[in-house]
Parts: sequence; structure tokens; C-alpha cells
Amino acid sequence: MKKRKQPLILVTNDDGVDAKGIKRLIDAVKDFGRVIVVGPSMGRSGMSHAITFGQPLRVRKVYECPDLQIYKTNGTSVDSVKIANRYILKNEKVDLLVSGINQGSNTSASTIYSATVAAAMEGCLSGINAVAFSVANYTSDCDFEAAEEAVKQIVPKVLENGLPKHVCLNVNIPNISKDRIKGYKITRQADNYWKEELNERFDPSGRAYFWMDGEMVRVDKKRDTDEWAVQHDYVSIMPVKTNLTAFESFEELKSWKLKK
Amino acid sequence: MKKRKQPLILVTNDDGVDAKGIKRLIDAVKDFGRVIVVGPSMGRSGMSHAITFGQPLRVRKVYECPDLQIYKTNGTSVDSVKIANRYILKNEKVDLLVSGINQGSNTSASTIYSATVAAAMEGCLSGINAVAFSVANYTSDCDFEAAEEAVKQIVPKVLENGLPKHVCLNVNIPNISKDRIKGYKITRQADNYWKEELNERFDPSGRAYFWMDGEMVRVDKKRDTDEWAVQHDYVSIMPVKTNLTAFESFEELKSWKLKK
Repeated sequence: MKKRKQPLILVTNDDGVDAKGIKRLIDAVKDFGRVIVVGPSMGRSGMSHAITFGQPLRVRKVYECPDLQIYKTNGTSVDSVKIANRYILKNEKVDLLVSGINQGSNTSASTIYSATVAAAMEGCLSGINAVAFSVANYTSDCDFEAAEEAVKQIVPKVLENGLPKHVCLNVNIPNISKDRIKGYKITRQADNYWKEELNERFDPSGRAYFWMDGEMVRVDKKRDTDEWAVQHDYVSIMPVKTNLTAFESFEELKSWKLKK
Repeated sequence: MKKRKQPLILVTNDDGVDAKGIKRLIDAVKDFGRVIVVGPSMGRSGMSHAITFGQPLRVRKVYECPDLQIYKTNGTSVDSVKIANRYILKNEKVDLLVSGINQGSNTSASTIYSATVAAAMEGCLSGINAVAFSVANYTSDCDFEAAEEAVKQIVPKVLENGLPKHVCLNVNIPNISKDRIKGYKITRQADNYWKEELNERFDPSGRAYFWMDGEMVRVDKKRDTDEWAVQHDYVSIMPVKTNLTAFESFEELKSWKLKK
């Protein structure tokens, strides 16, 4: 009897292929199919949907065994998805793209800055079911256990049901142990924003330079958001659109009656 | 009698502050208020919503006269908006942010890759009315005349009416002379996508490198899209949301019944 074809799972991230989070993600998905990993050789956090077309790209295989191959690139997370699809897999159908596990939550406006989420959106634009995973813990003692459990719950659902067209998932896991997770919530992006501070310093020649630092300004305190869920011990599943059209503002804009 | 306060207009782009397009944008908006220009020192196309927090940022004033100041930064377009708001303007209220005029259209999926559009989205996230302008001409003989006219039509409308909350505008102008423009259309983002080719070359030591190249795959041929408008000689005004939630998929995802 012919063995049923294994799903092909593409894994990427924005913390680089040597990060702890992507290793835990690989562990969590490897029983669901054949795994190809293509990710940045260095940290690419905050790069959003950036692509590289003004500079040469490189790609190199760093690990291979029968059901797992790992490649690193000098590009961004979105570049990695493109390189995987067009060059490594030669347009072979990918059944699932997973991105992460990012250290640091990607809720609210961070959805827009995040390259972890952008990689999932890139998969979605290419017609691949895609999920980004992030855990709300920046520190080196992050244990990923609750996040791995979320991956193992969500991945088979996506492989089984697929996702709505032009929609991917942005999953955020609270920074608590697995047994304290209260459950899963389908959420919306909180309407909060980052307010930056530019931390000014001076180099040895006296010229100013700045480190960008900032904090989330939490004006959206409703209970249906991704931030509320994570802060209240739920795994947040936020469906993300790749079509950014604000349809609800059409009437207002049409009333402007712009003349030729 | 006290003179009515002039609107404060922030100008940025992704082709760099020395690009022809931003000069034409400055010319087109300078009669509407006091203008502050903060943009990248070099081309930052395709950088989307990327921000710089792992490396030092620099900013330098390169031009000043009473109603116009120009600054360049080593950051991205989104960094430029943050530097303008937090450091140069010290949180002074900006009445309008304009980004562009980009050479090359930013319709369909390019909305997501574009740093021109991302700069407008960043303004929007900070509560500033914001508009991105792009003209469908990559070449050095681009005349910008139709684009300048669109800026002069749209800017006073935005200053007068404001924009809906959490919405900015992505304006695309066809590559034709001003008198051939048929009018303005409020459009949606076409559901098309880029398909890349990785153009392989070899360096002198024999190692492969790649240039990313690609083309838009046009599967969405409907007449209400940004692409249709630009291809049919209309200026496209696409309202862009900064909240990416796919509300219409909530029911489907809730039916998964994920267990704790």
C-alpha cells in the first residue's frame, strides 16, 4: 500500500536559525510532516515585511537528515520564505508555514512591525496556510513549554481544516507554565501603539547617536483583544488579513467629490 | 489680529531625501503649511514597516529656511517618522504626513512591501492624518506633473476633513500626462501577488549569489481595484487600515474548539 504523502512544513523565524525558539518550533512540528527550515543567519526582529532587492542574497544548507533540512540566508524573514518557495522547493506545494517561536509578544501594533508575523503573511500571499507563534518572554530563561503545546494544538487543526483565503494566524502565548494556560481565544488586534524614546549618546568624536527604545501605549482596554487575552493567561489567536483595504471608509472618502 | 496657525506638514519617503520625487512632493505641499522633511539618507524601497533598534540611529539637518527644514537619517522610512515626532518635533502635533512621491506603483500586494505606504501607516498609528503617493513610472524621465496635481487635490481635502480613525491613504497615479487623467477612484487593494525569480550569479571565488527579481501575478481582474484604476488612467485612492484583524474569519476559527 502506498504510504500517504507527508505534509511539507516550512519553518522560518526572525530571531535567526540558531535561536532557541526556532529549535523548539522544529521539535513541535516534526511529527506532523517533512520539515524544511529556511531562516535568517542573524536576528531580523522589527524588519516587518522588508525584502532585499538592492543587494545580493546568499543561501547555504547547514543541516540535513531525511525529514529535516536547514538553510540559512543573509536575507530577511520574508526573503527566506521567497527563497524557500522559489529556489529550494522549486514551487513544490507547501502545506503549512510556521514562523517563530518568537521571543517577545507580537500583539497589537507589534503585529505590523514583526518579521515573525510578516513571514506568515508572505506565506499567505503565496497561498500557503501560515501561522506565526510568539511567546511573551524576552529572557534567556524562556521555557517555551506552553508555546510548544499551543503549536501542537493549532498545527493539526490548520493541516486538517486549512485557513480562510488571504488570512493567516498570529498566535501569542502568555509567559506562564503550560498548566496555567486557561485556554484559547480568537482575538482582534488591540488598537494600541508604540511610543518611542530616542536614547541619545555621543560617540568618541562627540557626534550624537540614538538607540530607539519605547513602550506600548495601552488605550484599548477592551476584553476582545490579543493583548487582553495574553495578559489574562489565554493563548491569543488573531486572524490577520493580507488585504489592508479599509472598506468601511469608502462612503466618507467618496463624499469628498474630487474633481478631475 | 493673530495670524491663523499654519498646518504642520511632515514629509518623508523611501527613495531617500535626495530623490526627485520628494522634491516634487515638497513643492506640491509647501503652500499648505510649514514643512518638515525627515527621510532616509539612501534608498529604502521594499523595507516595509522595518524599524531599527539593534543599531544606532543618526540624524542630521541638511537644509533650513523659515518654512522648510530638511533632515536625513540613516534609518528607514518608519524610523524617520518616529525620529521626526519624538526627537525633532518633540511631540508637537503634526497636521498631515505625506510620503513619496514614490517612483513605482504601490498597488495590490506592493502595499505590504512598500516603505512609502508603511511611513503613512506609521503616521496613522501615531494619530496623524497620512497619505502615501506613488507614480507608476520607474524611469528617470518621470515628469511627476499628474502626481503633483493629485497631491494638490487631495492634501486640502485631508487637511479640511481629516481621515477616519486608524485609516491612511495609499494614492497611486498613472504614468500619463496630467490632462489624460480621467479622475479619482476610491479603490480596494487588488488580491494579486508577486512571484519572484532568484537570478543566480557567481562571484569571483565561485560562490553563488542571487538578485531577487519578480513580477506581479494578476489573478484579480475586477474593476474596483487599485490596479484596475491605475491601468485605466484613474488616480487610485485606497484607504489602508492599520488594524489587520480578519474579523470575517472569527466564526470559522471558533468552530475549531481548541481544548486547553
